[in-house]
Amino acid sequence: MLEKADLKVKCSKEEYENIEEGLLERIGCLQRRLREKGIPVIILFDGWHASLRGRVISSVLAGLDPRGFRVRSAAKKNACTEGLPYMTRFWTELPAQGSIAIYNNSWYYGLFEDKADSAKKSEGAELKVHAEDVNVFEKQLADGGYLLIKIFLHISQERQEKNLEKLEKTYGKDWHKIDGNHVKEKEYELRYEIYDETIEATDKRKAKWYVIPAEDLQVAQREAFGVICREIETALKDERTDENYRLQEDAKKVPDVLSGFDLSLNVSKDEYKEELKEYQKKLQKLQFQLAKKDIAAIIAFEGWDASGKGGAIRRLTSLLDPVGYRVVPIGKPTETELQHHYLWRFWQAMPFPGEITIFDRTWYGRVLVERVESLVKEQEWRRAYREINETEELWRREGIVLIKFWLQIDKEQQMARFRDRENTPSKTWKITEEDWRNRSRWEEYEKAVNEMLFRTSTDVAPWVVVEANDKYHARLKVLKTVADEFDRALAKP
Amino acid sequence: MLEKADLKVKCSKEEYENIEEGLLERIGCLQRRLREKGIPVIILFDGWHASLRGRVISSVLAGLDPRGFRVRSAAKKNACTEGLPYMTRFWTELPAQGSIAIYNNSWYYGLFEDKADSAKKSEGAELKVHAEDVNVFEKQLADGGYLLIKIFLHISQERQEKNLEKLEKTYGKDWHKIDGNHVKEKEYELRYEIYDETIEATDKRKAKWYVIPAEDLQVAQREAFGVICREIETALKDERTDENYRLQEDAKKVPDVLSGFDLSLNVSKDEYKEELKEYQKKLQKLQFQLAKKDIAAIIAFEGWDASGKGGAIRRLTSLLDPVGYRVVPIGKPTETELQHHYLWRFWQAMPFPGEITIFDRTWYGRVLVERVESLVKEQEWRRAYREINETEELWRREGIVLIKFWLQIDKEQQMARFRDRENTPSKTWKITEEDWRNRSRWEEYEKAVNEMLFRTSTDVAPWVVVEANDKYHARLKVLKTVADEFDRALAKP
Repeated sequence: MLEKADLKVKCSKEEYENIEEGLLERIGCLQRRLREKGIPVIILFDGWHASLRGRVISSVLAGLDPRGFRVRSAAKKNACTEGLPYMTRFWTELPAQGSIAIYNNSWYYGLFEDKADSAKKSEGAELKVHAEDVNVFEKQLADGGYLLIKIFLHISQERQEKNLEKLEKTYGKDWHKIDGNHVKEKEYELRYEIYDETIEATDKRKAKWYVIPAEDLQVAQREAFGVICREIETALKDERTDENYRLQEDAKKVPDVLSGFDLSLNVSKDEYKEELKEYQKKLQKLQFQLAKKDIAAIIAFEGWDASGKGGAIRRLTSLLDPVGYRVVPIGKPTETELQHHYLWRFWQAMPFPGEITIFDRTWYGRVLVERVESLVKEQEWRRAYREINETEELWRREGIVLIKFWLQIDKEQQMARFRDRENTPSKTWKITEEDWRNRSRWEEYEKAVNEMLFRTSTDVAPWVVVEANDKYHARLKVLKTVADEFDRALAKP
Repeated sequence: MLEKADLKVKCSKEEYENIEEGLLERIGCLQRRLREKGIPVIILFDGWHASLRGRVISSVLAGLDPRGFRVRSAAKKNACTEGLPYMTRFWTELPAQGSIAIYNNSWYYGLFEDKADSAKKSEGAELKVHAEDVNVFEKQLADGGYLLIKIFLHISQERQEKNLEKLEKTYGKDWHKIDGNHVKEKEYELRYEIYDETIEATDKRKAKWYVIPAEDLQVAQREAFGVICREIETALKDERTDENYRLQEDAKKVPDVLSGFDLSLNVSKDEYKEELKEYQKKLQKLQFQLAKKDIAAIIAFEGWDASGKGGAIRRLTSLLDPVGYRVVPIGKPTETELQHHYLWRFWQAMPFPGEITIFDRTWYGRVLVERVESLVKEQEWRRAYREINETEELWRREGIVLIKFWLQIDKEQQMARFRDRENTPSKTWKITEEDWRNRSRWEEYEKAVNEMLFRTSTDVAPWVVVEANDKYHARLKVLKTVADEFDRALAKP
């Protein structure tokens, strides 16, 4: 795609100054309309070293209200997400509705550098970042209502050398230090190929690339304004009717997964006490082993109201080192969370190497409460099955242990526990109007749970259904499962 | 203070099991009442290595609803705040109203380690963290409505050795890896002295230390519950009448600082254009030099509505590398920000070494809009003068360049600009009801500005008042001042 850019176009300083005021006003006005409509925008500037991206970005910024944008750079280390999956950083940095994120070097930076490093090794090393992951991410963004504008600034080898000389003359030999970007000269041909093939592989309908000639600074500035303004105008016109979206009436009928479990399973108090102690001690040691090997783990709890999630989590953690794990309770999203992609808040809680994050309710809220309460459209929760599978697969591929529990009780058992909570003064705070309202929709929830278990029990991230009418049985099954999974992760070479 | 702890007290496992259920219910209930009243709580567990803090913390956690607490450890690196002033981490980690932060090793960790390291050097090295900074921080927290509970777990040298042996037997030689805490054995005497004197120096009325004997695990658990519950109960009873607080009717009358500036200062368009270009180019190079030397800078803008803050910032940044600076506009606090200390959101935006944070409006909102609009009580904004001076002094001591601008225009000039905005279609969005409302309180604001300039123009962080009736003069003064300050910072050895 690079060859299509016409590097010969010129625009004099005077010509540019004549149109500059108009461009600034136009983009400023568009930014205000984006805010009104609550559209989040991400603008990527990638391209050659010394293609003067900083200057082009500055000229765009001059028209923007700083209350609505943030400039970022993947070439600069982000210490907060070091050690976490590559995409974590970009997920946590997503702009809120109506805001603009501008990247001088985006997630493509890692891709480009990885490929260049690999190509320079004699055998070619295995890649750590894949174009396919980027495509999945960008599709999730586009589907989630983000406007993505991808700009590649292209220059010739001669221009790069001239620019490098000029930068060196202004700032001295170490001019590149400020943006953390190491200049790799004399790699033009190698990089040309890498850029070209990567752009080709990631040029998608809703995530198009714009290759802009930057041989002449004014041309690059003018073209960048043009692309950005046109893309925003199109997004503002887009009524988001989702007319092209067809619900995939899945041919396969959803089987009644839940009915296959024996809820009468139970354990005596003595046996429980003994085994509980044993497994708690075992987990205490396993946590230490995981930490030593820098293995991260996510343990996800879902289940009916009063199915005993909290109690199970408490038994699971009681002998763990409190500094090495974290319980993240998921409730109604906050104002800020609502202004982001629904997966955003979960990416914020990624466990660092050697740590454990326990979610008390999870991202599956999308296909449970949000589905049943009609908080999102059908196409949104239907799409979530795929998005969740993609996300969990990515986590697993990064070596994170992932365990998902569904705590299953029957309707009678729930009623008994609700009554108990109502009648025990120290427990009344645990039962609310909402619990009764959810209960009245039991059958709808049951349908949603069945479909969730069916569609998101993948090879790499299977659900573990826990028979939870008997609390002792349920807790022991949870502890045993976690211990087994930790053992398995530790056994891997 | 350590000697006062009675290490001989015993409590058997059976005794403890008998009271455990009651303790868990009591603390769970107190947590719910804290949430209702919106009191934020910070519980510190500091003390000897191998004093089984993790176990004591776990026993407290067992009674808490995970929706309301977070366990942290200063012994574990927090990559997000590396390179920032020592206190940044603790400021950004502050719990929201109604939430509890529990530290296994708190800000005292750095103090203790620093002192131990220094003591072991032949001459004794200079300390990087000071007890006085901690006292300032804790006072600001207490004044800001945080409940602070400081617990030190004390053990004898024999007990420490026994515990170390036991831990090693369970986990192997590297048992301490999980909490990032390096065991320094055979330092008991040295550390005894350090702990004792530090505790002594930081034991304040609203930030009391509790030294708890941890010779016997059950005693430590019981005592920790006792201290925490009693402190919370006291805080819940506290009606916060601030009866002890006396407004310091400052003897010194506030002088009319503002009137001393000549608002007729102006610059011709030609001169402006020429100098602007010169200073922008100069700043471009200076930014690079600062980055190379890892010097961070904060540039704070305050001024009347329509005094030209935005325009000045735009000229200041137009040639800067967009990746190396960030404009942080300060508006009404969000829901989340309101649940924190008023200084919290500014600590979140600390510039990393080599970077520049530009605030468009600042922490001075406390003594300007919040004072004039009566959003806070008089004692709160009065206290803020001291708190702000303390905070700015701390930043300066950490080597951060701090420049504070007040853009001064007169009432007629503001009217002319308001009218211009109303009459120019591309500018109407810039003028709102609120601007007119603020204007109607001009005299009250003037009084507040005068007092602010008078009380917070310190030697290390003086205000720069910019005569801004003429935009050209104002912008050039801003650019020149920044360039001078950067030059000065770079000239330091």
